[in-house]
Amino acid sequence: MHQLTPETRDIGRGDGLRIGYVGGGSRGWARTLINDLAQCADLSGTVALYDVDTEAAELNAALGEHVMERDDAVGNWAFEVHEEMADALAGADVVVCSTQDPPEETFVNDIDLPKEYGVHQTVADTVGPGGVMRSLRSVPQYREIAATVREECPDAWVLNYTNPMTVCTRTLYEEYPGIDAIGLCHEVFKTQSLFADVAEERIEGAADVSREEIDVNVKGVNHFTWVDEARWRGHDLYEYLDDELAARGPLPAFERGALEGESYWANHYQVAFDLYETFGLLGAAGDRHLAEFVPWYLDGVEEAADVERWGIRLTPSSARVSDDADPAADVERILDGEETFEFYESGEEFVDIVRALVGIEPLKTHLNYPNEGQIPDLERGAVVETNALVTGDDVSPVAAGGFPDPVRTLVERTVTNQETLVEAGFAGDLDLAFRAFRDDPLVTLDPADARALFRDLVAAERDYLGAYDLDGAAVLAE
Amino acid sequence: MHQLTPETRDIGRGDGLRIGYVGGGSRGWARTLINDLAQCADLSGTVALYDVDTEAAELNAALGEHVMERDDAVGNWAFEVHEEMADALAGADVVVCSTQDPPEETFVNDIDLPKEYGVHQTVADTVGPGGVMRSLRSVPQYREIAATVREECPDAWVLNYTNPMTVCTRTLYEEYPGIDAIGLCHEVFKTQSLFADVAEERIEGAADVSREEIDVNVKGVNHFTWVDEARWRGHDLYEYLDDELAARGPLPAFERGALEGESYWANHYQVAFDLYETFGLLGAAGDRHLAEFVPWYLDGVEEAADVERWGIRLTPSSARVSDDADPAADVERILDGEETFEFYESGEEFVDIVRALVGIEPLKTHLNYPNEGQIPDLERGAVVETNALVTGDDVSPVAAGGFPDPVRTLVERTVTNQETLVEAGFAGDLDLAFRAFRDDPLVTLDPADARALFRDLVAAERDYLGAYDLDGAAVLAE
Amino acid sequence: MHQLTPETRDIGRGDGLRIGYVGGGSRGWARTLINDLAQCADLSGTVALYDVDTEAAELNAALGEHVMERDDAVGNWAFEVHEEMADALAGADVVVCSTQDPPEETFVNDIDLPKEYGVHQTVADTVGPGGVMRSLRSVPQYREIAATVREECPDAWVLNYTNPMTVCTRTLYEEYPGIDAIGLCHEVFKTQSLFADVAEERIEGAADVSREEIDVNVKGVNHFTWVDEARWRGHDLYEYLDDELAARGPLPAFERGALEGESYWANHYQVAFDLYETFGLLGAAGDRHLAEFVPWYLDGVEEAADVERWGIRLTPSSARVSDDADPAADVERILDGEETFEFYESGEEFVDIVRALVGIEPLKTHLNYPNEGQIPDLERGAVVETNALVTGDDVSPVAAGGFPDPVRTLVERTVTNQETLVEAGFAGDLDLAFRAFRDDPLVTLDPADARALFRDLVAAERDYLGAYDLDGAAVLAE
Amino acid sequence: MHQLTPETRDIGRGDGLRIGYVGGGSRGWARTLINDLAQCADLSGTVALYDVDTEAAELNAALGEHVMERDDAVGNWAFEVHEEMADALAGADVVVCSTQDPPEETFVNDIDLPKEYGVHQTVADTVGPGGVMRSLRSVPQYREIAATVREECPDAWVLNYTNPMTVCTRTLYEEYPGIDAIGLCHEVFKTQSLFADVAEERIEGAADVSREEIDVNVKGVNHFTWVDEARWRGHDLYEYLDDELAARGPLPAFERGALEGESYWANHYQVAFDLYETFGLLGAAGDRHLAEFVPWYLDGVEEAADVERWGIRLTPSSARVSDDADPAADVERILDGEETFEFYESGEEFVDIVRALVGIEPLKTHLNYPNEGQIPDLERGAVVETNALVTGDDVSPVAAGGFPDPVRTLVERTVTNQETLVEAGFAGDLDLAFRAFRDDPLVTLDPADARALFRDLVAAERDYLGAYDLDGAAVLAE
Repeated sequence: MHQLTPETRDIGRGDGLRIGYVGGGSRGWARTLINDLAQCADLSGTVALYDVDTEAAELNAALGEHVMERDDAVGNWAFEVHEEMADALAGADVVVCSTQDPPEETFVNDIDLPKEYGVHQTVADTVGPGGVMRSLRSVPQYREIAATVREECPDAWVLNYTNPMTVCTRTLYEEYPGIDAIGLCHEVFKTQSLFADVAEERIEGAADVSREEIDVNVKGVNHFTWVDEARWRGHDLYEYLDDELAARGPLPAFERGALEGESYWANHYQVAFDLYETFGLLGAAGDRHLAEFVPWYLDGVEEAADVERWGIRLTPSSARVSDDADPAADVERILDGEETFEFYESGEEFVDIVRALVGIEPLKTHLNYPNEGQIPDLERGAVVETNALVTGDDVSPVAAGGFPDPVRTLVERTVTNQETLVEAGFAGDLDLAFRAFRDDPLVTLDPADARALFRDLVAAERDYLGAYDLDGAAVLAE
Repeated sequence: MHQLTPETRDIGRGDGLRIGYVGGGSRGWARTLINDLAQCADLSGTVALYDVDTEAAELNAALGEHVMERDDAVGNWAFEVHEEMADALAGADVVVCSTQDPPEETFVNDIDLPKEYGVHQTVADTVGPGGVMRSLRSVPQYREIAATVREECPDAWVLNYTNPMTVCTRTLYEEYPGIDAIGLCHEVFKTQSLFADVAEERIEGAADVSREEIDVNVKGVNHFTWVDEARWRGHDLYEYLDDELAARGPLPAFERGALEGESYWANHYQVAFDLYETFGLLGAAGDRHLAEFVPWYLDGVEEAADVERWGIRLTPSSARVSDDADPAADVERILDGEETFEFYESGEEFVDIVRALVGIEPLKTHLNYPNEGQIPDLERGAVVETNALVTGDDVSPVAAGGFPDPVRTLVERTVTNQETLVEAGFAGDLDLAFRAFRDDPLVTLDPADARALFRDLVAAERDYLGAYDLDGAAVLAE
Repeated sequence: MHQLTPETRDIGRGDGLRIGYVGGGSRGWARTLINDLAQCADLSGTVALYDVDTEAAELNAALGEHVMERDDAVGNWAFEVHEEMADALAGADVVVCSTQDPPEETFVNDIDLPKEYGVHQTVADTVGPGGVMRSLRSVPQYREIAATVREECPDAWVLNYTNPMTVCTRTLYEEYPGIDAIGLCHEVFKTQSLFADVAEERIEGAADVSREEIDVNVKGVNHFTWVDEARWRGHDLYEYLDDELAARGPLPAFERGALEGESYWANHYQVAFDLYETFGLLGAAGDRHLAEFVPWYLDGVEEAADVERWGIRLTPSSARVSDDADPAADVERILDGEETFEFYESGEEFVDIVRALVGIEPLKTHLNYPNEGQIPDLERGAVVETNALVTGDDVSPVAAGGFPDPVRTLVERTVTNQETLVEAGFAGDLDLAFRAFRDDPLVTLDPADARALFRDLVAAERDYLGAYDLDGAAVLAE
Repeated sequence: MHQLTPETRDIGRGDGLRIGYVGGGSRGWARTLINDLAQCADLSGTVALYDVDTEAAELNAALGEHVMERDDAVGNWAFEVHEEMADALAGADVVVCSTQDPPEETFVNDIDLPKEYGVHQTVADTVGPGGVMRSLRSVPQYREIAATVREECPDAWVLNYTNPMTVCTRTLYEEYPGIDAIGLCHEVFKTQSLFADVAEERIEGAADVSREEIDVNVKGVNHFTWVDEARWRGHDLYEYLDDELAARGPLPAFERGALEGESYWANHYQVAFDLYETFGLLGAAGDRHLAEFVPWYLDGVEEAADVERWGIRLTPSSARVSDDADPAADVERILDGEETFEFYESGEEFVDIVRALVGIEPLKTHLNYPNEGQIPDLERGAVVETNALVTGDDVSPVAAGGFPDPVRTLVERTVTNQETLVEAGFAGDLDLAFRAFRDDPLVTLDPADARALFRDLVAAERDYLGAYDLDGAAVLAE
């Protein structure tokens, strides 16, 4: 029986909720979690950290303890570190997953090897050759997490933050069908922000509209989401899109090279609006994500400037590898008292979701969840992203409706390839995986090159592919 | 563009919202509306009443004005009466439908004629021979309402309270696909109350649990709804059902005649639990409704006592006809100051829904709405009942999931027959209507008797069937 | 690899094809098989008989050998008898299933116990309480056959002739998904004969039209099949049905008692035409079968005359038990030379089907096969009956299209209940089985009676229900 | 009522069947028709020719009359020419469509304009920018044909031979849902021939195997068809494919330039086998067709040699324009007696199909027909290609089953785009058409280029796009 009743929430430090954190040595997300828990008055308990890098987890635990001792920390949380995932998850009410393989050995290859074949990816974490490889690496990891949840905390709510979001979340359900897991991502926040600006600009009297106030109907799969309704206080914002489009002029609106110096995460809604202009449906994720799900933004790209016309940049692999000589230094400065941890508005919904699951306050938000009809066009059981209502110990996806033609086929292709990758991951079958690779929107390569690139990637990352039958794979045979 | 923004809500009496009320001469529902509006501080506006009985509407308007003048009436509403539906609906933000044909000429036949053939109905408003006839009468009426909405207030939210709920609401959408209509019914409240009792009895510390606190997952069609999840503050209540069933002993638990003197609307969850025992899924409407959707509670019934074993009573047609010599008398006493109108807790959600639609406070409740995937097992476009989230100018049904076998086929049969009746109503085709009549769960009559009963009903109610091709119907030919 | 190439067919007695016959001690079907094989010049081989009654199988083998020695027997077949099913099936190219439990211990109960509760069945082999029980008994038997095929002759074509046709054939596929099995039944032949008469009567110059010449589009599940097209040499026969109906006058056309003295298998197309009159679609099986799939022909029946109005008779259980003192006597007379075996036109398609599978001549006929889209309205994988094209080692069902409303729901209910029974049979779960029993069209009994009847049937036939968990079944607990 | 009974077939010249021929001025197909009719002894009647080029039709009529007068012409047919389509189709039993726009003004643009943007097409008649334009031109033409059939010969069987096959056939049904139309194409014959070779090579004793003897299970849409079963006399040929693949060595097997001098219609099963190697399913059309339905054979192609590695050639537009100074010369030489018309084995199935429809001999072949479940994965009503059984006045598609992932999504994309083009054609909506163009597998162009190419094509062919709203199309606005 689930434990997530209001009674369990605020008994005092070390009591109350138990949060198991897989990937608890992360630098960014752990800090956000500490920040948010410290500012939430009606939850308390224990965070049990697990990471392959135990030392990093211990540093985070120390930071957590440090922050909770501050007078203005209204939350009341203890922190533990475990060397085994099972110990960190034992008896957990909530499990957080935020893990990452070492970028040097994986992500760099995911980006750089395809580039040698002329395949340029803006993100490489969901689709594209990089997305495929990351999926293959993730399935065995997430099977292990799901199996540990089944064993140690079968009724826990699992909140996944790791990419490839869909494949990771789908793997959890495939391994342990009784799991309660959801996948959470920020990308649609961008679209809400866009509409907040639209409201301010176009509705008389609207000012300081926040993205949380914007109600959008979300549908799709993670990073390839779409929005077909947008409202603010009963005002229909969607009908202003044509005016917005006209105001932007011919797309893309950027000169070659105009983006020089901007962040790799820049977003200017160029792709989102181009999709709207073409299909009448607004793409609802960052452009660098959207661009990877169809061939026409990245096919034939030869240099960065080709992409920058769309207001997005090709993330170089170097951007994925920290060049920080001592990443722990700033935490140590805080622990030593040299620096103060400043509370901030994280924009994360983790605490809101836990409060909803505990029964304190319902929350409507978009999340990734197995399809039980919320998108009737797509396969049941596939993990899709739509709005959902989170209430006491329950998540109810909202019926989001279908897609217009051809958008349906674009999304359906993604779903099918992701399902194929999960199946390949469970079977350890790289020939099956290659079918998804072949059908990937960014892999328009000649068959010989497609096979060669796939082999190169497998060769470079074989240490992470121990769960696959490398010898029996026909696609790997020369 | 819709008007239902918070800006439109509370400007002052006669301004603000405009509610068009079809059936505004009703005795019960109008009084509830007046009561609830008077106690709601953040809505104001005008209620425009229309009824074929203009006098009754005028009495209600007078009552409304009278009540609003009281000091403790925090609502601020004006009341108008119109002789044409179009005038009452012109410019409406919200339309309420609560209409009824004269029972003497319709409902009495719906109940009494089938009885002559051995078909005993407990309600006769949704399925059964009575449900079929009422559907046939309703389609033309609701076409007219939908056409008037399209003409006079195309963006209004239409809230239907009239039975047959599914057929009426479905007709609104078939006639005017752009309509925003929902159908509202109380029956599932009973199931929530049942679980509120379960919570109080079985969860330590639970007391004064109200039905509003019970979160149930509702699925089905109106009056043939089912619940497969129930929670109270994160506690799973559904798993107590086996204990509840055991505590009730063998079903039905009533002796013949034991119900003597109880209300016709008595409900003891006997049918609901018998369905649970058989199919593992709890029937979630009053037993007198549930019993009509399958043949095995009412087939072979010969006298009232046969049914009363199930804790339900056969409603005699006389119970549907008011024996009140002067139904307006009590209103007149109030208007004359002889009696005081006492405010009460109506339990109705009308005001909550309008407040949600206006954007004041979101509401999660169950309602009837076209299927866009919330029940993926059932035909898209058919009107189904599930939970939904009501927010500013928007209704989002919640994905309720499918049914276990054979329950799916039971519900699907109902949906198919209702769709057939709507189609027959639009086409004026009684041969088509007879197909639904023939497949009705309560019509297990021999073919000759089935035809004879259908003919008798049509003959008795032909004044209300002017939209049908009576001469061309083969089924009516001897 | 399959062996059914023309090369394997006609090498000589004892060579060529190998037919394994489960139920090879049957009296009627074995004789037909011998008759048909003896008259077919282009097939030869061995028939290996297996039966729990080895003696009966040996008598059939002797008859077979006797017949093949006749000069006018152009077929060339050897006959063997095996005491183990595995031995009879080892290396078979074709497997025939025609088995039956002893009627005294099963069928008599299937018919007589329901009668005590007022449930009268005309056949009791597919639906109704009898159909349910027979299904429950069949699943374990057919699992064993499928397992033996998988072991002994995995590439054989399995031709099932046993009822309940759908459940038996479906069980073969559920147990051994790689099986090649089809189910064969005569009932649609009746509908073809009806149209042959129509052609002779209504088309100028048509004479001696045989049922084989009539092309009908068949759709449904065995014994609840429908026809929506009928042609003879390009003439549309279906459009004469209204005239046929008119010519028959009001249905049913029989007086009470008028059927006295007719065979229990009498058929007068009364039910078929009543379904046509009601739904516009012709029922296409014998009326005694059709009548059991909806409640309205048999509900409320109290005596035989109630049913005989429809031109059908209630088969008494005694008609199912042979009263033949020495059933083998006639075979022995033939073997002793006292009587001559006369060749006859059997009307069976077995030899035609084998000839088609061997590649001699393609055959279009109706048969039972897993749904892969031939009836898109119905669940994929369920066994349905449609036309199919039988060619060399291949069966291709023909796309038969969907059903009009409400007929679809009637058929779908049958499919769902049959799927439930197969699932219950594999799980040994009588509570699950009771769900199908409860939803059966003939079980309109009060819940208490329905449970009591189910218990009585299980008690009477428990020797045949060894594969079920009788102790754990809640429905059996008083 | 249909006329296609055997009685109508062979009464004598000018009597019997009436064939209306739209495009009757064609050079190749008309000659084949004459050849085949002349050699078929059991059909006779009249061929009524219509063509925008009346003179060409008259020449064909003269040729037909000439041939029929030969002694060895066992067929017995008269030929007429009409200036109005309606006259040619009046009273037709069979309608043949084989039409083509002047290549100079259409096809040359379809091929050459995309080439300027780097889009190289091998055929350009079904997908690709050329396929899209041809579809847009075809919809209005085929609406007219369907309307004429509805008016002049509503019960005729319409046999379409024109590309884009799917769009043309689908348009016929969209315009006149009651039509009986099928689409016929040769491409799968190639796959049957491949398997005939396989049989000869790998099965002992197999010699002179003809393609007609090869039974393949066909599924897909025209030119993007697949085969997942192949048999010859009960031998499974599909299981030899791995050996075939191994024998071919690494694909593509051709050196750059090795194809020099080969026909533009060369086919070496390179693409078919590459699809098999990747997806486990054999592509079943000529490689030059298959290559256009996915991006990876033609994306990035810069010169002919890039494609010739696959054993196919880029058809230059010049190959589509006859360079014959006097195309009628050879016919005139025959009419003048200078040359003799030699009968030949055409390989066409037209006569076989008509014989089957007339009821003489059933035929199983693959053809294009609205999906009623034969491919349950694909939208119902879309025109798909599968096997079908052609019998007296009837066509029954065979259940072909679904596709493995990702192949399903590849085919589904094609279907969706074709449905979109038909919808755009009926609505005259080029913005809608552009959605299909954008999602076309060969249009991986940058959005600006995609729009520019679309505009260029529309501008070049606007004379043929009179049915479209060119002024209102946003995509055409600069």
